[in-house]
Amino acid sequence: MILERAIFAIKPGCQKEFEAAFARARPHIETAKGFRKLEMRPGIESPDSFLLLVWWNTVEDHMKGFRESEAFAEWRKHLGPFFAAPPAVEHYEETL
Amino acid sequence: MILERAIFAIKPGCQKEFEAAFARARPHIETAKGFRKLEMRPGIESPDSFLLLVWWNTVEDHMKGFRESEAFAEWRKHLGPFFAAPPAVEHYEETL
Repeated sequence: MILERAIFAIKPGCQKEFEAAFARARPHIETAKGFRKLEMRPGIESPDSFLLLVWWNTVEDHMKGFRESEAFAEWRKHLGPFFAAPPAVEHYEETL
Repeated sequence: MILERAIFAIKPGCQKEFEAAFARARPHIETAKGFRKLEMRPGIESPDSFLLLVWWNTVEDHMKGFRESEAFAEWRKHLGPFFAAPPAVEHYEETL
């Protein structure tokens, strides 16, 4: 199980709207092939920063299966308007 | 349960030594008060980057209970020699 880590810098003061948008976006990722679980957390030191962790079966499930799907377009339609910068996304191997 | 996220940039080519050092360091954090679980993962796009996630009961369990303990000095003694830069550490609230 690999891990996707995305850091979202959102527009200042939009935390509550972003959280509401995430609630609407969430089903579009949770039903993707290879999706295992996620955590979405607001920053403590930086409240305009959110950390998204998604555990996937493979990188391809994320980068091809999800990112090239209609569901991703829906997901991004909800969240994109709140981004202050492009999300910083990295993938990580199995945990030690 | 809050989340600590640390990104370790390690010296190029030292992945295996860093993983071995982490195996020795691990008991020093896992026995800390308020520790719940951790994941330590090598980067896929950036093999010299590791992501450490630690789920703690509270920020204070991490920043005071652990960081000011003898156990932290031991932990850092194992891992510190491999750092190419100071770790980037942030804390995150409960997951949505």
